[in-house]
Amino acid sequence: MFEDAELGHAVDKAAYDARVTALRSELLDVQFALKDQRAFPVVLLVGGVEGSGRGETVNVLTSWLDPRHVEVNGMGAPSDEEVERPRMWRFWRSLPPKGKIGIFFGSWYTAPILEASLSKGRSRWARLEKSVDEIVRFERMLAEEGALVLKFWFHLSKAAQKKRIKELKKDPLTRWRVTGIDEDYFKKYDRFREVSEHTLRHTSTALAPWLVVEGVDRRYRELYVAEELLRAIKARLSAPKAVRPLPARPSDVPEVDAKRTLLTELDLTKKLAKPKYEKELEKLQGRLALLTRHKRFRDHSVVVVFEGNDAAGKGGTIRRVTSAVDARVVRVVPIAAPTDEERSHPYLWRFWRQLPRHGSITIFDRSWYGRVLVERVEGFCTPYDWERAYGEINDFEEEMAGHGIIVAKFWLAISKTEQLRRFKEREQVAFKTFKITEEDWRNRKKWDAYSDAVCDMVGRTSSSRAPWTMVEANDKYYARTKVLRTLCERIERGLG
Amino acid sequence: MFEDAELGHAVDKAAYDARVTALRSELLDVQFALKDQRAFPVVLLVGGVEGSGRGETVNVLTSWLDPRHVEVNGMGAPSDEEVERPRMWRFWRSLPPKGKIGIFFGSWYTAPILEASLSKGRSRWARLEKSVDEIVRFERMLAEEGALVLKFWFHLSKAAQKKRIKELKKDPLTRWRVTGIDEDYFKKYDRFREVSEHTLRHTSTALAPWLVVEGVDRRYRELYVAEELLRAIKARLSAPKAVRPLPARPSDVPEVDAKRTLLTELDLTKKLAKPKYEKELEKLQGRLALLTRHKRFRDHSVVVVFEGNDAAGKGGTIRRVTSAVDARVVRVVPIAAPTDEERSHPYLWRFWRQLPRHGSITIFDRSWYGRVLVERVEGFCTPYDWERAYGEINDFEEEMAGHGIIVAKFWLAISKTEQLRRFKEREQVAFKTFKITEEDWRNRKKWDAYSDAVCDMVGRTSSSRAPWTMVEANDKYYARTKVLRTLCERIERGLG
Repeated sequence: MFEDAELGHAVDKAAYDARVTALRSELLDVQFALKDQRAFPVVLLVGGVEGSGRGETVNVLTSWLDPRHVEVNGMGAPSDEEVERPRMWRFWRSLPPKGKIGIFFGSWYTAPILEASLSKGRSRWARLEKSVDEIVRFERMLAEEGALVLKFWFHLSKAAQKKRIKELKKDPLTRWRVTGIDEDYFKKYDRFREVSEHTLRHTSTALAPWLVVEGVDRRYRELYVAEELLRAIKARLSAPKAVRPLPARPSDVPEVDAKRTLLTELDLTKKLAKPKYEKELEKLQGRLALLTRHKRFRDHSVVVVFEGNDAAGKGGTIRRVTSAVDARVVRVVPIAAPTDEERSHPYLWRFWRQLPRHGSITIFDRSWYGRVLVERVEGFCTPYDWERAYGEINDFEEEMAGHGIIVAKFWLAISKTEQLRRFKEREQVAFKTFKITEEDWRNRKKWDAYSDAVCDMVGRTSSSRAPWTMVEANDKYYARTKVLRTLCERIERGLG
Repeated sequence: MFEDAELGHAVDKAAYDARVTALRSELLDVQFALKDQRAFPVVLLVGGVEGSGRGETVNVLTSWLDPRHVEVNGMGAPSDEEVERPRMWRFWRSLPPKGKIGIFFGSWYTAPILEASLSKGRSRWARLEKSVDEIVRFERMLAEEGALVLKFWFHLSKAAQKKRIKELKKDPLTRWRVTGIDEDYFKKYDRFREVSEHTLRHTSTALAPWLVVEGVDRRYRELYVAEELLRAIKARLSAPKAVRPLPARPSDVPEVDAKRTLLTELDLTKKLAKPKYEKELEKLQGRLALLTRHKRFRDHSVVVVFEGNDAAGKGGTIRRVTSAVDARVVRVVPIAAPTDEERSHPYLWRFWRQLPRHGSITIFDRSWYGRVLVERVEGFCTPYDWERAYGEINDFEEEMAGHGIIVAKFWLAISKTEQLRRFKEREQVAFKTFKITEEDWRNRKKWDAYSDAVCDMVGRTSSSRAPWTMVEANDKYYARTKVLRTLCERIERGLG
């Protein structure tokens, strides 16, 4: 992987000077086109070995670009707000919107590579492998969502690195760059090289390739990075719109034995009498309240997802949860049309940005599952897009669970007859808050298509760490207590 | 101020029950109208003495409201990201958008009142006075920007408080609420009462009144707060659109001796020869680079504002600044049309959200001064709105300076002839990045109106802590070095 980057690539001054002026104006041109069309975000990662000129090159590159449309993220130590969120949160919040170039100096590679280079345990390769898998899927998602992902690895041979660091140390102007680099550091070179080579090989994909830059010659590395960036943006700007491949399993194939599904097997006659409900409700709300005041709750957070048929009673159920706990602890995020900032980022961005800090509960009233429900059924996205969403959602929830977030997901199910009854009832009630829209009636006509989507969704995204709970909701009392009880149990298990 | 809240107000169960059901549905109705029309944000503050039922009331109130459109902000200890920003940043970032209710439990009053109650120094009243002034201006701004501001103060007499806390301590279910409240606490009651009474009197304004709630009776305080909230939203929803009073000084009065202004007195013939410029530039860029690596720089941040005539060379000057320092340290924020999230918040929100963390520089390419420049001249806002903006901007910059942010503001001035020359030159250059738009030509026709606006702006918003620097920019070399030199000097002074 690194052989080509140890050949001593260099550009002489004449060749450099002959190219630079034109290169800079071409860069500004494509940058302007990118910005003007708000075409796509450019995610540019910079990694590599110490002394290989990463920082200098980024500085030169940004000085050639229009600085108003580049964001350089020096990912130093995470802040406490970042520490309280899943590992990837700080990268998500720094993702550039469409039309901008986001340079990540230090990235999601930094921690896994360092960890595998420095730790000693026998499981370090296994852990690295896991990180590599996650990264590949994350970057694929970025690319599928339209981002142009470019990754530059700055390489130096061991000898070249020694020489370079000696030089940097001599010069009072650059000495500060290499503090803490001593003999001990070079001992780790081989290990670091082995780990990063492995990582790079396994994360260099068609949609997010690694480009290895030889870091010895300043002019070479500057031209290399700038030319690659220029070419990549230009090519993408003029590329024909990608036509997504058809998923292998068309969604309109009739199921074999479709009579029995997750939904048909629900016993919607389940009921709870009012007096019992009231007693039960009070008990469960008290239990939930106590849990949120538990000492260990301060180091956890909870994410609750509510999905369900129209008129299944999500609103009322959510109110029974929120009213149980201190209002400062809980926030409800209703999912409506995305804002323009949200639209200019990958699909999951608007959910990532809402993840709670420690000691808090966030309730999503509808959620990221919109993509595999309404967007699928209504044809708002291609089959390829909603098919890939299952995997992306699983990864998202894995991130949460891996960070200790307690995840609970509820599908509130009612029968078609019960829905009709509620629609009619609502039409007669004056409260505008419950008005029935044309859309509700339209959705109802697609009942079967929605049912298929729900079964697929649950089947493909329910896991022990982020399980779906199917809630029989024809009877509101039964539904609410089931939700509260399940939520309490999930939190209890999460707190250990 | 508190007398009426020590009378023993109470509501009996029958009266409460008779009202609550209707009240709740009325609340949901107005909340729905508020959300549906995205009419305005509601900012609801909750303060008061320990044991007065603040938390319980907020919990009941939110359980009556649709929780999807209420955000409760329990303002606990600030995070490190908040500590690195001016005091008010954490409140700005939590302001609700139009259509939502934001409840602040703990607010911008908490710190000043506690500080004045607990500290001993003789200057504590003076400091309180200063805070009170700032708060009054801040809330006026919120109200002028369309927010409905309601402030509830929960009061208990000393005797009532003692009794209440005794009760709370007895009950194992509520004991946790009153940890740390002992005899010592009651000694401070009088002081706290004096300070808060003073503060409330001076911050109760027509646009942001305090409502004092007697905290003894649960039913009373719940109805009180809910009824007030209901009435206020309802009244505002049906209020006629406010017509802004005309400012006392119409902007089209010709100046006396308008021949001499800040702009006419600039010597635009100032020049720097290229060889001298190149030497000077290198020296200044090196100086700036060193400053950003200074140990004390890690505890400061820098905000730079660039405004100027069209084609005055802002872009080129900004590039000379950004290319001097490490790309990770600096971010350029180009100000274009606000996003829809920005539009649903007060005007200054989109600038507040960009304030840098410690150790960073944020450069605004155009800025909050748009309101007193383009918006004034083009009539995008009323004279009343841009007149009040001067004061709001001064407050904003005071907040920054008070927090130790180094603020530098540059007006890049060119002559009308020089602008024409540059426009024509640009029209002939192929780079699309520099294209001249219809708008540029239109703006040019209003040269004099813009000049008046600039002079007013500088006159009214230049201060020793956030000074304007007028930059003679007919000669780019001269302009760039003047900007860099001024910026270095500002940072040097700021670092002390």
